[in-house]
This record gives sequence, C-alpha cells and structure tokens, in this order.
Amino acid sequence: MNKQELIQTIREKKSFLCVGLDPDMELIPPAIKNDYKHPLFEFNRIIIDATIDLAVAFKPNVAFYESQGSQGWESLEKTIAYLNSHPKGPVFTIADAKRADIGNSSRQYAQTFLENLDFDATTVNPYMGHDSVKPFLDIPGKWAIILALTSNPGASDFQTMDCHPDSTDMEARTDDLLPLHQAVVKKCITWGSPENTMFVLGATRPESLAAVRKIAPEHFFLIPGVGAQGGNLQEVAAQCMNHEVGMLLNSSRGIIHASRDDDFDIRASEAASRLQQQMDKILDSA
Amino acid sequence: MNKQELIQTIREKKSFLCVGLDPDMELIPPAIKNDYKHPLFEFNRIIIDATIDLAVAFKPNVAFYESQGSQGWESLEKTIAYLNSHPKGPVFTIADAKRADIGNSSRQYAQTFLENLDFDATTVNPYMGHDSVKPFLDIPGKWAIILALTSNPGASDFQTMDCHPDSTDMEARTDDLLPLHQAVVKKCITWGSPENTMFVLGATRPESLAAVRKIAPEHFFLIPGVGAQGGNLQEVAAQCMNHEVGMLLNSSRGIIHASRDDDFDIRASEAASRLQQQMDKILDSA
Repeated sequence: MNKQELIQTIREKKSFLCVGLDPDMELIPPAIKNDYKHPLFEFNRIIIDATIDLAVAFKPNVAFYESQGSQGWESLEKTIAYLNSHPKGPVFTIADAKRADIGNSSRQYAQTFLENLDFDATTVNPYMGHDSVKPFLDIPGKWAIILALTSNPGASDFQTMDCHPDSTDMEARTDDLLPLHQAVVKKCITWGSPENTMFVLGATRPESLAAVRKIAPEHFFLIPGVGAQGGNLQEVAAQCMNHEVGMLLNSSRGIIHASRDDDFDIRASEAASRLQQQMDKILDSA
Repeated sequence: MNKQELIQTIREKKSFLCVGLDPDMELIPPAIKNDYKHPLFEFNRIIIDATIDLAVAFKPNVAFYESQGSQGWESLEKTIAYLNSHPKGPVFTIADAKRADIGNSSRQYAQTFLENLDFDATTVNPYMGHDSVKPFLDIPGKWAIILALTSNPGASDFQTMDCHPDSTDMEARTDDLLPLHQAVVKKCITWGSPENTMFVLGATRPESLAAVRKIAPEHFFLIPGVGAQGGNLQEVAAQCMNHEVGMLLNSSRGIIHASRDDDFDIRASEAASRLQQQMDKILDSA
C-alpha cells in the first residue's frame, strides 16, 4: 500500500488506528488456546474480523510468534495471508520485528518480511546505520518504519542523549547539538523518502513529537503508547498531525486483551471503536 | 556455559574462535540443497563436525533461517539441538538475533532464544535501553551480547557520534563527551556483570577496542570482521585481550563458504585451522 492509498483509507474509515496483534498465550481464552492447532492465528482471525472496519493497519509483533517456535511462525504466516486477502481490505500491514543487521543479513530480514511474507512495512532499529536500513528501503512499494523515540522507560537511556551529529566538524558542534533520536531522524530521512520511510515515536513524550515533526514534515509517524502506557490521543494529534494526517496510532493490549473471556472480540471492537470515534472528531476538526 | 567454563574451553582448545553459521542458500552445494528436507541444518551439521575441534563457539545468524520460513526455523531448532548434544561439546552457543523491544516483548525474545531454544547467549541491540536489555540478563546462566561498535560501514552513522552521556548535568558535559558506543558500554555494564554480559566490537576499528577495554576491563568481547571484512587478528588481540583472554573472534563466510563445492567441509576445516593456529600462538605468547 502506498502513501496515497494509506491516506485515502484513513479518510474513508475516519480512522488512523493500527491494531497491534501481540497475542499473549497467557491471555488468550482457553476455548481458543485448547481447540486449535494454531491458536495465535485463530485468535488473530477473530480480532481482525472484529476490528477491521475501525482500523487502517494491523501490526503483529514478531516476538510473540517466535516464542511459540515453528508453529508460531506458521501462525504469523497465516495471519499475514489472512490480512492480505481479507474482503474488507486492503489494510496496511506492519511486521513489528525491530530488525537490522549488517547489509547481507539485513537483506535476508527484508526479504523475509517484505517479500516472502508480503507485509507492507517492517519496523527497523537504526543503531547499525545506513547499510542495515537500506535493504528494507530498496524493495519497491514497501516501507521501513525506523525506531526514533520509543514509548518504553529505556528510551531515556540513549535516545534522548544529546549528540553532535557531525562529529567531524568541531566548529559546528554547539549549533548541531541534538537528542540522539532527532539525529537519527535527520539522517534517516536522507536514505529514503516520505513514500517509503516512517518513524516510531512514543505517545508518552508528546513534547518531542512537535520537534521531530519540524525535522520530518512529510513523513508518517507510527505512534505507540496511548492508553495503557499513558499517552493522550488529542495531545498527540495536536503535536504531530500534518496536512496528510501523517500518523498511525497503535494500540495492542488495550484492544486485543480488553477481555480474557469469550467476549474478547466484542470488547476488542468496543475498545477500537472508542479510539476510532476520537479519531473521527480529530480528523473532522483538522 | 559460564565464564569460567568458557575460559577453560579456550585454554583446552587453544582457540577463541566462534564459527558463524550464516548459511546462504545460494552458496550451499547443490548436493545438499536438493537432497534434504532441512538443507540449512544438514549443511550446518557437516560444518560443525568439521570445525568443532578448532572452535569454542558457534553463532547462527537468525536472519538466514527466518528467510526460509517455518522450515528455516526448524533448521535453527535442529542446529541448536545438535550443538547442545554434540559428543565433542560443550561449546558456547550464540543466537545472533540482534533483538530488543519494550519489556514484555523482549521477554518473549529472551524466552525464545535462551530458554526454548536453549542458546547460551543472544546478541541484543541497545537502542531501546535498559528494559529492552534486562529480560536477557534476567535468565540465570545465560548471556546478553550487546552491540557496541559493529563492523559494518553504517557503524559510522550513529555509533561513533560524540554524545553527552549525562545530559542532565550541563556542567559535566565537556568532560563526559564520549562516542555513542562507549556511552552504551559504560551504561550497559551497570545492568549486568562480566558473568552475563559481552559486547560486540568490530575488528575493523582496532583503535576503538583499547578504549572500550579500559571501560570494561573484565568483559568478554565478541569480535566480527577479521578476514573478509579486513580486520587483523594479531592487532585486534593486542588491543583487547585481557588476563582471562576476554575475546571471542567470529568468522562466518570465510569458514563456512570457503568453498561452494562438495569439498566445503575440508575447506571450512582448513580455514578454521589457520585461525586456530594464529590463536594458539597469541595465547601462548600472552
């Protein structure tokens, strides 16, 4: 799905919601866990059907599939195939894999998620630099969603550290001082374009969103951390929405594990609907 | 395998060689690729048998298995099971996965590689900070090998950027200025100990090894980049060997794909032997 199709889907559904498919085996209702060969997929299938009218994107976190071994990997394969052939689609699909490695290994990861599994996008960790990111950008029609400022407490360890992006230019240092995540965004936008690059920015630090929006005015941001992690949707939108919306807001546990009982699909739909209604208002007043 | 057992294995084998099991389907001899259900595993099995007398550690790069889907994942499962039950073992086993995510997702990754698959260690990307790394350190008897300065060209994008590790202390700034990878090591050594934490440092930048050795005198370093990538073994050892050896040197393609023909096991053994002989001399003169 390209940028214009994504924006059109957002306008049609009046939603910029991404549903995080991070199914925790401990929280899946027993009726599903015990009755199926691929419980993660069966759970996802019901969640997808319950929320696809309200969401424009779905994001399986690969950690939750790998922990179930090769059977978990099969559930991931079945989930993306289900998403890509859903009659109510198309939806934007994100493999939340947070991968990156030296060039020839990163090519394997890019091929895995963007070609073999046919996701639209993969989340990518920028620490290893350009040759670890570019294999994801080199696949036509696909996206890299690069970690910038994440929503977890550990984001304060390195991502907010003040850096000199151009260390070779001693004279320019004082002017150039930037928090690491801004230096990451500033450099990464030169590797691709707003048509194939997004950034992960946590809703838990709304004051930082506006600063990154200035550096990357045209890029989409993928924003986790509203709800359980404490971020506020209106505040986040005020800080970083642009003329093309420019943001996807992710909610995982708040939707998929809203209930641990057999009514989990109804509760998931209700939780997604509450967010979609807020988004409708925000889009309407923008 | 704990630190003392690793050092003892190094002394016994007169080697600190780690063989990177990154089998590229394009480079595996046709006789293996076409004859087996799990060609990656069959290739690994022969490589392991050909090199286990010369190596103390084996490091499958997960990217090369995931790109083959659930069958590739099964090859990874079979490879680690083979390593962990090898009559010529024990060897130190590393899942080169370069993972990290927010806490609850990182726990899934740690469980996957260190508990379910039962590797001794996983490589971990530090960008997301303490709660993304600690789940790997929390598993008793297991290791996190944290990326510091990698051997690829992109290492110069962010890892060498000058940073102020304590951004809240404006007065201390000038004194505290450190390249990002040194700031990473300085902080990460406070999260674990030399008994459960190692660092990845590329052989391609030997001048940086001595600086990191000063920050982390007791930690093991995992060092890629000798051979194909241009690093020099003697120079590397001179910069960072400590009284407990303190380093594992990785070679992947230079060993496993030394030949693309049916003699690949003989050529792999020869390549491993050349490195082991250099290591024997270095250990002897230390």
